[in-house]
Amino acid sequence: MATIKDVAKQAGVSVATVSRVLNDNGYVHGNTRKLVIEAIQQLSYKPNEVARSLFKKKSRLIGLLLPDIRNPFFPELARGIEDEIQEQGYQLIIGNIDEKYPKEMDYIQTFQQNNVTGIITATNLTGRSHYDDLSSPVVFLDRTFNDHPSVFADGIEGGRMAASELVKRGSKRITILKGPAQLQTAQDRFNGAIAWLRAEKVDFSVIETSSFSFSDAEMWAKELFEKYPDTDGILASNDVVAAAVLHEALRLGKAIPEDLQLIGFDDIPLSRLLFPPLSTIRQPAYDMGKEAAKLLIRLINKETHFEKNIRMPVMFIERQTTRKVEENG
Amino acid sequence: MATIKDVAKQAGVSVATVSRVLNDNGYVHGNTRKLVIEAIQQLSYKPNEVARSLFKKKSRLIGLLLPDIRNPFFPELARGIEDEIQEQGYQLIIGNIDEKYPKEMDYIQTFQQNNVTGIITATNLTGRSHYDDLSSPVVFLDRTFNDHPSVFADGIEGGRMAASELVKRGSKRITILKGPAQLQTAQDRFNGAIAWLRAEKVDFSVIETSSFSFSDAEMWAKELFEKYPDTDGILASNDVVAAAVLHEALRLGKAIPEDLQLIGFDDIPLSRLLFPPLSTIRQPAYDMGKEAAKLLIRLINKETHFEKNIRMPVMFIERQTTRKVEENG
Repeated sequence: MATIKDVAKQAGVSVATVSRVLNDNGYVHGNTRKLVIEAIQQLSYKPNEVARSLFKKKSRLIGLLLPDIRNPFFPELARGIEDEIQEQGYQLIIGNIDEKYPKEMDYIQTFQQNNVTGIITATNLTGRSHYDDLSSPVVFLDRTFNDHPSVFADGIEGGRMAASELVKRGSKRITILKGPAQLQTAQDRFNGAIAWLRAEKVDFSVIETSSFSFSDAEMWAKELFEKYPDTDGILASNDVVAAAVLHEALRLGKAIPEDLQLIGFDDIPLSRLLFPPLSTIRQPAYDMGKEAAKLLIRLINKETHFEKNIRMPVMFIERQTTRKVEENG
Repeated sequence: MATIKDVAKQAGVSVATVSRVLNDNGYVHGNTRKLVIEAIQQLSYKPNEVARSLFKKKSRLIGLLLPDIRNPFFPELARGIEDEIQEQGYQLIIGNIDEKYPKEMDYIQTFQQNNVTGIITATNLTGRSHYDDLSSPVVFLDRTFNDHPSVFADGIEGGRMAASELVKRGSKRITILKGPAQLQTAQDRFNGAIAWLRAEKVDFSVIETSSFSFSDAEMWAKELFEKYPDTDGILASNDVVAAAVLHEALRLGKAIPEDLQLIGFDDIPLSRLLFPPLSTIRQPAYDMGKEAAKLLIRLINKETHFEKNIRMPVMFIERQTTRKVEENG
């Protein structure tokens, strides 16, 4: 069976030129076009999967806004979205907001100008009324905002779960790293944890943090052990921060999980590669991406009668920064 | 000074509507438009940075193709590109190839259809003649391909450096994790290492690997210690693989760096958070991104007389998976 390369060879042109003819996109000289079409006919060339996609006049684009692609949680969301939309013939383009408002505005404008069919946003920024009047549907992912369609993990339950698993395993002097104040998801985790700890009358201390970045995480970790050297159980605001805390604890010679237990949040791919492997509250990032894509496509297709705010379950992943329940006297 | 929010409030519309008026983009009812313009005049509103960018009729887009956004090396490249192009008034949109040829073709087509001004690609795929005839300039990043413009780190020197640092610190039975065969950069590191080891007549073994993914990395790590339990020095194909090797070594109870030394490649943000922190060969990812952006903009501006293939220096980052030179007898 003839391939696009055979066609290019027969016509004496490049594969890209054949693509442009198939796709009717970009300039191709009239004579060249004729040569390509003749070659297609002579070879009875049938476009394969790639070429078929090139026949489509215009890709259907979905735009994704991520707050910081360096945080490994977000690429997992993107992968879930991609796998879901690809089956439906959509393509994903990603903009990295980098937590800057002008960038976010620029990307929203770019997406609109390029006629994206829909937008999925994991913006960190508050005052998001700029999403109110867009012509394309918008889904908030890992975020909630008023009554906008959204997919998010159950942070309150996650916080409660993390706190109760620590206490169940014997921690008595808990320290909580409280995530960025502007992030509802981070506050949900925090509120879920402290509500449970208060109800159970367990002592706890709080370290305030303002970001999830790798470099800041090292700073919070140091601050934590300076302020609360005797803590025996730590709830980290996410897995990146947990990795920094684990590092600092081992550097200080603490035995983990014997002297100190630690639970993260997210379950990013690196968490199982840490040593000891990190116990954490898993957010189903990949599945959250898939659900957001499904929700967006329903909005695009103007379907009715479906749930517009999807809360995804979280799960305790027991690894080795927490003790076994039976070991706790 | 009046802000866009004040204008929106005065006109009784959303900020997004004001943006659309400023930007002349998307439908705004004639009466609404009038209200907004009146409010702008009444308040003597001067567009700030955001609004100014909204005035621009069309963003100038640069498209970036990444092989796998889950590998933390690639987001660093993206950040370098972003910071460089932003000053020049460009915006970056990212496509994740996911190491699949049809996806790559789709993205190239999408970028062309949306009139991207230039493309930066870190494709893993061979047979890349589809880049030959594009109407926009292309820069290969972390890759080289024939005589196409490119920015890449000096992998041969990196491999040599890693091997010599291990041997200098006393390792005698080296194992090399050889990265994916289709990746020139991975092969350069490998070739640089073995050329030096052969010249110095140092024994070494090789484990072949076919990807850099987190899940595969655990498999290679297990295979390595099953086949070569006595190895005392490991060159990992990148830092993700090194993290998996470190994990497995600690699980097996090896003392690091006393029994076993380990050097990674890349210096991703997580490497310093491992425990012990990972010694590695640093690729200047962020700066590589910046250089690729500069090169692309030179090509876009049709400048002449500049270097089209830029080899960036690598550097040994000494942390704690290698011994101090003076400790080695």
